[in-house]
Amino acid sequence: MLSKNQIKIYTSLKQVKYRYIHRLFIVEGLKSVEELLLSNFDIIELLVTKNWYDSNPDFGQSAQVLPEFVTENEMAALSNLSTPPGVLAVARIPDYDDVEVELKNKITLVLDGISDPGNMGTIIRTADWFGLKYIICSEDSVDVFNQKVVQASMGSIFRLKVITRSLTSLFDQAAGLGIPVYGAYLDGVNIYNEASDFQEGVLVIGSESHGIRENTHKYITTKLSIPNFSDNTNKAESLNASIATAIILSEMKRKSVLF
Amino acid sequence: MLSKNQIKIYTSLKQVKYRYIHRLFIVEGLKSVEELLLSNFDIIELLVTKNWYDSNPDFGQSAQVLPEFVTENEMAALSNLSTPPGVLAVARIPDYDDVEVELKNKITLVLDGISDPGNMGTIIRTADWFGLKYIICSEDSVDVFNQKVVQASMGSIFRLKVITRSLTSLFDQAAGLGIPVYGAYLDGVNIYNEASDFQEGVLVIGSESHGIRENTHKYITTKLSIPNFSDNTNKAESLNASIATAIILSEMKRKSVLF
Repeated sequence: MLSKNQIKIYTSLKQVKYRYIHRLFIVEGLKSVEELLLSNFDIIELLVTKNWYDSNPDFGQSAQVLPEFVTENEMAALSNLSTPPGVLAVARIPDYDDVEVELKNKITLVLDGISDPGNMGTIIRTADWFGLKYIICSEDSVDVFNQKVVQASMGSIFRLKVITRSLTSLFDQAAGLGIPVYGAYLDGVNIYNEASDFQEGVLVIGSESHGIRENTHKYITTKLSIPNFSDNTNKAESLNASIATAIILSEMKRKSVLF
Repeated sequence: MLSKNQIKIYTSLKQVKYRYIHRLFIVEGLKSVEELLLSNFDIIELLVTKNWYDSNPDFGQSAQVLPEFVTENEMAALSNLSTPPGVLAVARIPDYDDVEVELKNKITLVLDGISDPGNMGTIIRTADWFGLKYIICSEDSVDVFNQKVVQASMGSIFRLKVITRSLTSLFDQAAGLGIPVYGAYLDGVNIYNEASDFQEGVLVIGSESHGIRENTHKYITTKLSIPNFSDNTNKAESLNASIATAIILSEMKRKSVLF
């Protein structure tokens, strides 16, 4: 059984400050917890309600840690969902500080100030689908171990390395290696016409409200745009950040296999 | 000044039942209200707080209806946002019952049981970007005049016709005209290799949890898939429904301009 103090600590993980004091985060629901169990992440607790466990007797048989029971009220306190799940895990936030990002022969995604957790999680999920190995988030992005981000990533956050750090050294590294830095803009080159084979490169996505910021803009070597096909005089001004990321990654990957 | 009864009616529009009893819906925030003002939708009320109006003195000068003041509390009651906006409108739900959907020479989107309002709104915004004229939603989809859908559509819901009706007659119409019906599946033809020029067609997207349902499946003439580029043994199983829609529409539009 969990102590009151443990429950208190785990409940505090809803706040970013306590996630980094304890270096722990919450993973909710069966699908995400199953993906966590398949990953290399350290699992501290597997928490289940009695009701849920009784209807899922095979759960956790092969897990590194045994499931512990919590009451429905405790689960509700730990969960971020309006309908709390029957299963939830506490995992350790990985230390990516010393990870050297490899930029050669691959596309790497850089997120410049993405603040919406749902968008962040969806971008992580999409980048995983397209086989990316790293996402680098600017330090003012939403925390990637936020419960909503983890939820929306649908387990992808356990597969690719989502690293929060200053972007400058990454851009210097790309410049040193001669790797192009693409940015998503409203006034760039039509991505369908861009001649690159996209075998390698860095793709920078800014927030919907601010776009790619001044500090980052100077590192961009090619501005890319997704053409607007509307024939209305009053057109949509922009796309959602996760949608723009998906369309550009799709087009890069399509071109990369043609060569 | 609004009467208590008006406030009561407008507040009730958060519930789908009352939206259709009154055939009214809520549009929140400056960006969405501005798009509403540019549209052909009937505007019943423009509601502003005193504070907001004082800092936006030019607002509503050319609007068909004069802004009315509401208190901050009334605005909070009407709003669906945790930070209520300073401006909000009540508009009439358009009657699309007799609209004949034109399928020739265009791509038309069909949504089969999309229940997440954020996804629905993002799909509408994306379809507008790619110049679509119609989206047809199955009757069990989330109501498209839900406040969260309207919010996420960022004004696009006022530009293309988003029609909720039984899908069967639409599929019969497509079959009668010899127009292909594409469906997004996990085991279809790689969209990058699909030989169609996509000058016209119906694209069906199912929900993430259930996919395209049995009743709809029989009308699909070509199954399309977005290839998974991950080299992990444990891969992401699917994409978010709005992401899949965006990638397929992008690829269709890219191909359509090549011809």
